Amino acid sequence: MARGRISRLSVRDIRFPTSLGGHGSDAMHTDPDYSAAYVILETDAEDGLKGYGITFTLGRGTEVVVCAVNALAHHVLNRDVGDIVGDFRGFYRQLTSDGQLRWIGPEKGVVHLATAAVLNAVWDLWAKQEGKPLWKLLVDMDPRRLLSCIDFRYITDVLTEEEAHEILQRGQVGKRERGARETPDVDEHHVSTEEQMLTEGYPAYTTSCAWLGYPDATLQQLCSEALKDGWTRFKVKVGADLQDDIRRCRLIRNMIGPEKTLMMDANQRWDVPEAVEWMARLAEFRPLWIEEPTSPDDILGHAAISKALAPLGIGVATGEQCHNRVIFKQLLQAKALQFLQIDSCRLGSVNENLAVLLMAKKFDVPVCPHAGGVGLCELVQHLIIFDFISVSASLKDR
Amino acid sequence: MARGRISRLSVRDIRFPTSLGGHGSDAMHTDPDYSAAYVILETDAEDGLKGYGITFTLGRGTEVVVCAVNALAHHVLNRDVGDIVGDFRGFYRQLTSDGQLRWIGPEKGVVHLATAAVLNAVWDLWAKQEGKPLWKLLVDMDPRRLLSCIDFRYITDVLTEEEAHEILQRGQVGKRERGARETPDVDEHHVSTEEQMLTEGYPAYTTSCAWLGYPDATLQQLCSEALKDGWTRFKVKVGADLQDDIRRCRLIRNMIGPEKTLMMDANQRWDVPEAVEWMARLAEFRPLWIEEPTSPDDILGHAAISKALAPLGIGVATGEQCHNRVIFKQLLQAKALQFLQIDSCRLGSVNENLAVLLMAKKFDVPVCPHAGGVGLCELVQHLIIFDFISVSASLKDR
Repeated sequence: MARGRISRLSVRDIRFPTSLGGHGSDAMHTDPDYSAAYVILETDAEDGLKGYGITFTLGRGTEVVVCAVNALAHHVLNRDVGDIVGDFRGFYRQLTSDGQLRWIGPEKGVVHLATAAVLNAVWDLWAKQEGKPLWKLLVDMDPRRLLSCIDFRYITDVLTEEEAHEILQRGQVGKRERGARETPDVDEHHVSTEEQMLTEGYPAYTTSCAWLGYPDATLQQLCSEALKDGWTRFKVKVGADLQDDIRRCRLIRNMIGPEKTLMMDANQRWDVPEAVEWMARLAEFRPLWIEEPTSPDDILGHAAISKALAPLGIGVATGEQCHNRVIFKQLLQAKALQFLQIDSCRLGSVNENLAVLLMAKKFDVPVCPHAGGVGLCELVQHLIIFDFISVSASLKDR
Repeated sequence: MARGRISRLSVRDIRFPTSLGGHGSDAMHTDPDYSAAYVILETDAEDGLKGYGITFTLGRGTEVVVCAVNALAHHVLNRDVGDIVGDFRGFYRQLTSDGQLRWIGPEKGVVHLATAAVLNAVWDLWAKQEGKPLWKLLVDMDPRRLLSCIDFRYITDVLTEEEAHEILQRGQVGKRERGARETPDVDEHHVSTEEQMLTEGYPAYTTSCAWLGYPDATLQQLCSEALKDGWTRFKVKVGADLQDDIRRCRLIRNMIGPEKTLMMDANQRWDVPEAVEWMARLAEFRPLWIEEPTSPDDILGHAAISKALAPLGIGVATGEQCHNRVIFKQLLQAKALQFLQIDSCRLGSVNENLAVLLMAKKFDVPVCPHAGGVGLCELVQHLIIFDFISVSASLKDR
């Protein structure tokens, strides 16, 4: 049971000097210091439980997000936790529609990152009070209650609350009575989606081998280690120099062999025509997807690239810098992506991620969350396990 | 001539308590305190000239923008003004593509507002050093030089630098040799566009009568005064309550008569289907446009609304919260607006506004800048006068 009144909000600016080793480097972010604005909520309840929430940043600017968290604090302090989660949609809208603050967003950039950090802390607190991991809190929640956490404003032309309810109702059946297994070795009528997650976990890929700032020898060594560790899906950063990309992609494809999956990530480096031309040159290495080929704001651009690359067997993935559900709505409407990458700290926390998961289900587009940054892996596992158990019931292309 | 080295950047948080009188209130911003983050640049040149730049805000959150300006300061301090304006595209990109800061944007929200304030100050300083008002600096600038201020990244699929050059070349002819007058009382072969601006000025409209927070009596009184002052174009805020809107629109239409122009502004209050239904009810008052019917991020939504309202003779206007040239590019591509409203402080200063003015010209969509906030009227007059003299040569629907 949610309990207590929020008595304190504190926020810290936490930075790791990852730029010293080129970790996390890509075509647009050449020297990131993986960082986070870290929010801690305390209540006056006797249990002493605290809620921890973060948003991921790249170093400079974390102090700006911290400043924005403090600007939101008055919406949170002295509120009953039960009142907040009892009308979570209303609370979400209070944060995102503050009549003065929304001008410097709305629902995008610094204020939305700050909103995500605050709301992530609320969800963490609620889950702890319920004595469950977040994914389990979500999976066990009544569909109507779950939907009452989502702000449907600006997406009802694509997904109404009733349609969302039907999706969740179908998931309710799936999660208890049958598994939607795609591996043939287990009788699908006897394993629920929840049991499957608990026993087998969720598939993942690694980018750790191929950051753009790594020299070839490092890349080879890390790739070889990852193969030994059993990884089957590899992502390589591209987009800074075509000849360099060809060399690095050839090197990786040769090491991992023809069967394993290779993904490419351009981190927004290209204009639309450039993306199409560049990827035509890299098609021989058979990437599953090209990630962030151009501006994250360019819905029609992603649609044009998707259309041009489909005959080459290359999909478009994007989402880590898509700033809200309205952008995701349009990416789905325009058939602009084939892999949808939610970011648990850029979207407005669980609340807005739920909206996007449900829209993705409606359009039958697989969700492959963005992770790897500070705290992202810890957060997205809850969202994606909920997605499998209660929404998608599929691991295809995940 | 640009001169000196930037020796100091200071930034102030300036707020006016406009919420006390309901000034500036609308369906989404019910209690704005019109405010600004105010940047001052000083140089070591002996002329003592300073550059002043602002971005408009609504009160709370101004301190967040101030924090972001300080995060950008290291890109500006100790730079030669001549070097900055000599490679203004490079400088623009340096600010907007900072490998760490861009994560909390990119080119949107708080960091982009801060970028606008800083760049506005650079333009102000440059114009002062040249001894010209900003519009004249722009009008007199060689087209190639002007284009070198624009970052064409992410818009080349719609407007290449060469196409932009052709547009400006055509404007060069127009601005010196002929006026593109649409009023019949002056011989169009003898008045240049620049002379026309100097003698006659640019048309404007007023929203001062009809903020949503005003009671009917105030509305009537202000409307009556505006009519006496010679205003012919009136804008009314709508979107909070349909019956209230019908009453207020009828009142205004009755006061201004059938000939004068009425515009409506919903400030993002509606979902897409709601916008279409609501405006069908207000069509009898014959608005020229409905402004911001839905989320500023919803390009496809604006396109759907435009299509639905066209048979009613109502256009769609938007832009004051469109965060960058990539969004405007798509609004134009999707035929999602019939009136384009640049915001001189939300887009990345003159540099990005130039890109949008040139795209609007290519699509033949009239530009009607957003103004009215702190400093906006002072800024947009320069942009729109440049637009008339060097780009559009038209007052039609402006």
